[in-house]
Amino acid sequence: MSHKPEIISTETYETDAKWLRLQRIKYRDQEGKERFWEVANRSTRKGAVDSVHILALIKQEGERGVVLIEQYRPPVEATVVEFPAGLLDEGEDPATTALRELHEETGYQGDGVSVVSVSPVMVKDPGMTGANMHLVTVQIELPPDAPPPQPKLDDGEHIVKRTVPLKELNAVLKDYEKRGFAIDALVQSVATGLGLAE
Amino acid sequence: MSHKPEIISTETYETDAKWLRLQRIKYRDQEGKERFWEVANRSTRKGAVDSVHILALIKQEGERGVVLIEQYRPPVEATVVEFPAGLLDEGEDPATTALRELHEETGYQGDGVSVVSVSPVMVKDPGMTGANMHLVTVQIELPPDAPPPQPKLDDGEHIVKRTVPLKELNAVLKDYEKRGFAIDALVQSVATGLGLAE
Repeated sequence: MSHKPEIISTETYETDAKWLRLQRIKYRDQEGKERFWEVANRSTRKGAVDSVHILALIKQEGERGVVLIEQYRPPVEATVVEFPAGLLDEGEDPATTALRELHEETGYQGDGVSVVSVSPVMVKDPGMTGANMHLVTVQIELPPDAPPPQPKLDDGEHIVKRTVPLKELNAVLKDYEKRGFAIDALVQSVATGLGLAE
Repeated sequence: MSHKPEIISTETYETDAKWLRLQRIKYRDQEGKERFWEVANRSTRKGAVDSVHILALIKQEGERGVVLIEQYRPPVEATVVEFPAGLLDEGEDPATTALRELHEETGYQGDGVSVVSVSPVMVKDPGMTGANMHLVTVQIELPPDAPPPQPKLDDGEHIVKRTVPLKELNAVLKDYEKRGFAIDALVQSVATGLGLAE
């Protein structure tokens, strides 16, 4: 006999952490049995989804490239190769967040920059956290002689931007790994999908 | 003047959680300034890496398919479409974990099942957790008339296995979303990479 699983209650462990909370979920499993599961969540979520990540595809002189950023991340004690990303503001739709964050982190905006698609809600590590996101694909059409734009970084934000030809993405990620960078799971998975198609 | 960022100390918030821990990192940023960051980590890590996820590619009668599983995940209160996956045992190499977990969760093993590649270390949500993994690509060659194998599920494990033709992956994920499933970020990102190549 199989039931639809359901959450019975959620208890938050008391800490003085500000941005994250550790919780214990009591739920009923498929056999009707009560079980517990521990979960970490952001305390910053404003709506149903935490964040957007941006697959920014540059088209210039017939070549296709993808925009990556390098950013130091204390939780993994490493500089991580990621897609540009950001948290959704209250009531904001994912396409708007994506265009705002892309502008702030990389400088790209305006004519020739458009949202192509917004992914289904994606969960990042559903065995451990409730963290979720959309992957927003943005097309950037650049004239042949366009200079790279300047990002609008906040004080204390240290982000290095890089554009990589799509066909070199897997090789570039291997090189990053050799040089001690960590690779974000989204970036490596997109590269793996690209490689599968070859 | 830019410094290499470094962790100064890590303090664990006291809770009676068993599988997860919430921590506060004190680190020095690129400007030499002391800052704090909150992070959630698994308490189960045995070595340098938490887990493997398995991109299992089936080749049968010239068609290529990928193995997905459906599994209820309390942290996201939904049934999630994921790749087969599992935590690394102590001293275990990622390829061994991948073959063991693939067998347990899907039944595939033995002749015709081989590890093709192991990704660089990938970080799953480096703004929030230290969680990391390898994506292990496994090739499964099946004769035309091979029946689907039986998984070896533990008591209380409820996993539904499904094989999807690679060329239908994006459409299948959209359909899953419509039916109320959550999509794992790795699966959607591989599908997005595949789509890019078209």
